[in-house]
Amino acid sequence: MSAPLRIALAGLGTVGAGVINLLERNGGLITRRAGRPIEIVAVCARDRSKDRGIDLSRYPWEDDMTLLAGRADVDVVVELVGGSDGPALALARRTLAAGKGLVTANKAMIAHHGMELAEAAEQAGNGAGAPLKFEAAVAGGIPVLKGLREGVAANDVARVYGILNGTCNYILSTMERSGRDFAEVLGEAQALGYAEADPAFDIEGIDAAHKLAILAALAFGSRIDFGAVETTGITRIRAADIAQAEALGYVIRLIGLAEGAASQGGLFQRVQPCLVPLEHPLAAVDGATNAVVIEGNFAGRLLFQGAGAGDGPTASAVVADLIDIARGVDTAPFSVPVEALEARGPADPGNRLGRTYLRFNVTDRPGVLAEITAAMRDAGVSIESLIQEGRPEEGGEVLVVLVTHEGPESAVIQALELLQGSDSVIEPPLVMPLLA
Amino acid sequence: MSAPLRIALAGLGTVGAGVINLLERNGGLITRRAGRPIEIVAVCARDRSKDRGIDLSRYPWEDDMTLLAGRADVDVVVELVGGSDGPALALARRTLAAGKGLVTANKAMIAHHGMELAEAAEQAGNGAGAPLKFEAAVAGGIPVLKGLREGVAANDVARVYGILNGTCNYILSTMERSGRDFAEVLGEAQALGYAEADPAFDIEGIDAAHKLAILAALAFGSRIDFGAVETTGITRIRAADIAQAEALGYVIRLIGLAEGAASQGGLFQRVQPCLVPLEHPLAAVDGATNAVVIEGNFAGRLLFQGAGAGDGPTASAVVADLIDIARGVDTAPFSVPVEALEARGPADPGNRLGRTYLRFNVTDRPGVLAEITAAMRDAGVSIESLIQEGRPEEGGEVLVVLVTHEGPESAVIQALELLQGSDSVIEPPLVMPLLA
Repeated sequence: MSAPLRIALAGLGTVGAGVINLLERNGGLITRRAGRPIEIVAVCARDRSKDRGIDLSRYPWEDDMTLLAGRADVDVVVELVGGSDGPALALARRTLAAGKGLVTANKAMIAHHGMELAEAAEQAGNGAGAPLKFEAAVAGGIPVLKGLREGVAANDVARVYGILNGTCNYILSTMERSGRDFAEVLGEAQALGYAEADPAFDIEGIDAAHKLAILAALAFGSRIDFGAVETTGITRIRAADIAQAEALGYVIRLIGLAEGAASQGGLFQRVQPCLVPLEHPLAAVDGATNAVVIEGNFAGRLLFQGAGAGDGPTASAVVADLIDIARGVDTAPFSVPVEALEARGPADPGNRLGRTYLRFNVTDRPGVLAEITAAMRDAGVSIESLIQEGRPEEGGEVLVVLVTHEGPESAVIQALELLQGSDSVIEPPLVMPLLA
Repeated sequence: MSAPLRIALAGLGTVGAGVINLLERNGGLITRRAGRPIEIVAVCARDRSKDRGIDLSRYPWEDDMTLLAGRADVDVVVELVGGSDGPALALARRTLAAGKGLVTANKAMIAHHGMELAEAAEQAGNGAGAPLKFEAAVAGGIPVLKGLREGVAANDVARVYGILNGTCNYILSTMERSGRDFAEVLGEAQALGYAEADPAFDIEGIDAAHKLAILAALAFGSRIDFGAVETTGITRIRAADIAQAEALGYVIRLIGLAEGAASQGGLFQRVQPCLVPLEHPLAAVDGATNAVVIEGNFAGRLLFQGAGAGDGPTASAVVADLIDIARGVDTAPFSVPVEALEARGPADPGNRLGRTYLRFNVTDRPGVLAEITAAMRDAGVSIESLIQEGRPEEGGEVLVVLVTHEGPESAVIQALELLQGSDSVIEPPLVMPLLA
């Protein structure tokens, strides 16, 4: 038996406790598979006295997190502190600078600082390199980063997209099933612990955008460009939208989608609610499940689906990274060396072709439909169907829902610009693409 | 740039041609990702003159396949000849004996000789070891072996199961959609090229059994035991079964399922048609698509779905293996060294709990139902629902369909034994478990 892989755990929230639990319960089989034991030599968290439901007395406690990176008895630091900057980033930098491996579940940190950290990992140990792994940062227990980096490595990937945020998917699929409105379902999700007290990160799409930026870099060999992810959350979706979508044969899902085959110029990255056709595999994904689709030019369409969060699945991904390190599997964090990653500007979304769902809230008076349809005509948008709800909502407001034929996104934007000064359109229209 | 990985291709059927096509089209990105080029230094097939739609003049032709393994300029042999024994096995043995790497898409050879070949790979090069990889052998372009070996390596896997044969799935989902009977749909599938002229390997479940045996070994750290896979094909499924299943809220799929968590004794491996509940992700898998579910004790239920066959997807998996080798990623073919794999006997299926669908073909005369239900009672099988078709089929035959409550499989077997002498039961009943 070879020497153990010695790890230090920073952060003992649910995921940290999950990692300890996993290493304890599955230790024997992990040692067999990794070829050597994975041993926790130090643990560290803000509050030592907190009851985490696990016995920590077996593990040496380190009070000062920053010291973990310097310990001679540590091979790999597992960063589960969270936050894009602050202590997590300081620890990550120190760890790699000390030539040690880093495993993290921190999507925000990787989305913001992944390039810097990958460079530091390459240069660690005077150029020998140190492993940097973050499978748990995207889609929880689903090994989709490994799938992209290794499983479909032979493919020119055209698109990668999926359901990347379990909270949003829980809310949308609950709205779908119950017919209730967003605010009510959000409140319930918070009460049940499926949504945070401050849910903005999830429901505004930022968490999904972090994950999408990481997926895109791996899929397309491009530098992470989180700032270029266009992000729209789910807060404006109404029960009426879900009902309309259903009538059209669709469900609404928050989809993170990136497009950037080698032949294309810019990289398209967007998180937004989309209409997903009922026959598409993502339409069947409900509750807190995540799912990612990868479209390769030889593999075709692959789907990876599973639990996107939770202590067990996330710990599963963290420890898979540790087993890779213990086995000596060390592919580049972003599939190719950082200097080989392309810095691609954002694609012009105006050229994108597709069908679009538009929901207008209008005042219930004559001429409104004429105004909307004239704007569409003048912008060259071809209308496939238009439904005006019979009964006015509170405040005399009426919903007009319109689905376009396939056409360029720029035409839809132009039509909306033409309507911007309108007295009849009460709030900015809700715009959702139909996923094709 | 490092030295190229030099490969020899044995077998130039659709998959071999697909590999050449892939390496030509995606060569640039593969070189970047692998860190070095993958170069074809020799090709070999039975018939040199056959038109394969690709230009072979660029590649040195080798007339004698057995010589590929001995060539000093070859690092890895890619075996795409097929067949569990014969030339493919001879080449595989020679290749590993010569200390070279072997990549194969040959599920039959791995199911029958995987243990021998994995041992040879370990001992190759005087114990230095040589890579042996076979991602393409299971589920085509879906990187599910990598998922098991690495992605869920931290988990005690309870079950692995899925739709492993595209031909059967095409036939079953077409029967479902069209209401037509098996023979007719098989004939159409043959005409369309979705089924072989001699379809036995697919429709009898043998192809799926090969794949299941490989999945089980990887999932449970057990030695491959293809002989222990209980295999039933789809030839006896009638349109009436599909209609009955639908009425109950199920579809019929050919499912390969293996169960063998570390805590269990024996290993359960079975390929047979099952009733899959409509809300299960496998129920939505239709046409020639494959899908595999892995249930880990921390990751939870993971689904991998995609094209299970075809030149593009299979080539994608073959070249992913080659990229792994070029990158120096060399985990044990069966996750742990061969000597660490357990030889587990088959589990006693009688202890398995579940609900069962039973279809009896009976003569249309009084007392038949009493006879069947008495046998069930005497064996302790509790009946959940029983339907007797109103109109007799040709020959005065009537179908009686029965679904049991959850109970041990042994009780169902006992009930069927009690009915074995019956004059009323025309052919052996069709027995299908309800997937839970």
